[in-house]
Amino acid sequence: MKLHGYFRSSAAYRVRIALNLKGLTAEHLPHHLRKGEQSAPAYLAINPQGLVPTLEEDAGAVLTQSLAIIEWLDETHRNPPLLPQDPLRRAKVRAFALAIACDVHPVQNLKVLARLRQLGVPEEKVAEWAAWANREGLAACEALIKHEQGPFCFGDKPTMADLCLVPQMANARRFGVDVASFSRLLEAEAAAKAMQAFADAAPDRQPDAE
Amino acid sequence: MKLHGYFRSSAAYRVRIALNLKGLTAEHLPHHLRKGEQSAPAYLAINPQGLVPTLEEDAGAVLTQSLAIIEWLDETHRNPPLLPQDPLRRAKVRAFALAIACDVHPVQNLKVLARLRQLGVPEEKVAEWAAWANREGLAACEALIKHEQGPFCFGDKPTMADLCLVPQMANARRFGVDVASFSRLLEAEAAAKAMQAFADAAPDRQPDAE
Repeated sequence: MKLHGYFRSSAAYRVRIALNLKGLTAEHLPHHLRKGEQSAPAYLAINPQGLVPTLEEDAGAVLTQSLAIIEWLDETHRNPPLLPQDPLRRAKVRAFALAIACDVHPVQNLKVLARLRQLGVPEEKVAEWAAWANREGLAACEALIKHEQGPFCFGDKPTMADLCLVPQMANARRFGVDVASFSRLLEAEAAAKAMQAFADAAPDRQPDAE
Repeated sequence: MKLHGYFRSSAAYRVRIALNLKGLTAEHLPHHLRKGEQSAPAYLAINPQGLVPTLEEDAGAVLTQSLAIIEWLDETHRNPPLLPQDPLRRAKVRAFALAIACDVHPVQNLKVLARLRQLGVPEEKVAEWAAWANREGLAACEALIKHEQGPFCFGDKPTMADLCLVPQMANARRFGVDVASFSRLLEAEAAAKAMQAFADAAPDRQPDAE
């Protein structure tokens, strides 16, 4: 398999964790997002959104969108499972993952922040925007799992929720958000980061890290 | 079941279509988003994100995030299926749905547009922003299904992809996007809208429609 990514992309980071948890290896093909490499015609031909990650499986199929890739990995490589068995529990895990993947990450990604700058929004307001999206989104995520047993987001094993949480917490800190009050998120993040699969997927461990 | 929604919310619209396709009925509880009713403490207690939809199932469980709700409906009420059987095909359908649910809809929703206004962005630039998010996102969606057989997004039956497409096309038009060049999207939209389940879920057919 080949994984098109970027060391700092939190969506690619989610997929790297999933691959590691499943014990799968992929060749990493970096695309430098700040240099606009994701908009090269050859890349747009496989990912019309011009986003990372894209996973090319060995038979040539092309998969896009991190959560769709993770669901596919979970359906085709069952162990360890990244979703619970029970439908209602699956819905809870997916809702947490989507709260990050839909309502936090895309609102503070490079493309949107660049668009704000194009509108003439001053740099400190752009930074405030990114911090706002993270702060508000993670506060809701904290409420979603406040009464869930830990140490992970949902119980004693990592799920798709933790795969989304860990990269987003890194973003939140990068944008200066004070995460100290998010005690359940911090507990889940700590449990996840203690695992080799999460540690090896970290941005600073990637070949294209700066 | 009870569905907390808003007639014009495209995320609630997706779930209304899913319920109709599955032949399920739900009591509709509208929350007027423009009046801020989604931020009432009683609602935040069941949906900490303060977003619609929220589905309360009869035994009391609370489900949030439209795609998590749709996956749950699909897992608990199998017919008609909203995802194909084959894992790779499922990944394609999910990627299309997520391209809309993550990368188009949240960037142009009420909350983000309100934030732009707070930053002092003039009204015509706010409208341009919403049109940009729809135009760029739907152009990528068109490319994602250009070589897929129709008339629906993926084949001869509606899937989760069509559930996301139809509400987003309505948004795109509302923001003045010229959708004429999106021939595959228009084909899929027409096939979907010819079905009663889609027609009955339309915003102007809801009890809270203005």
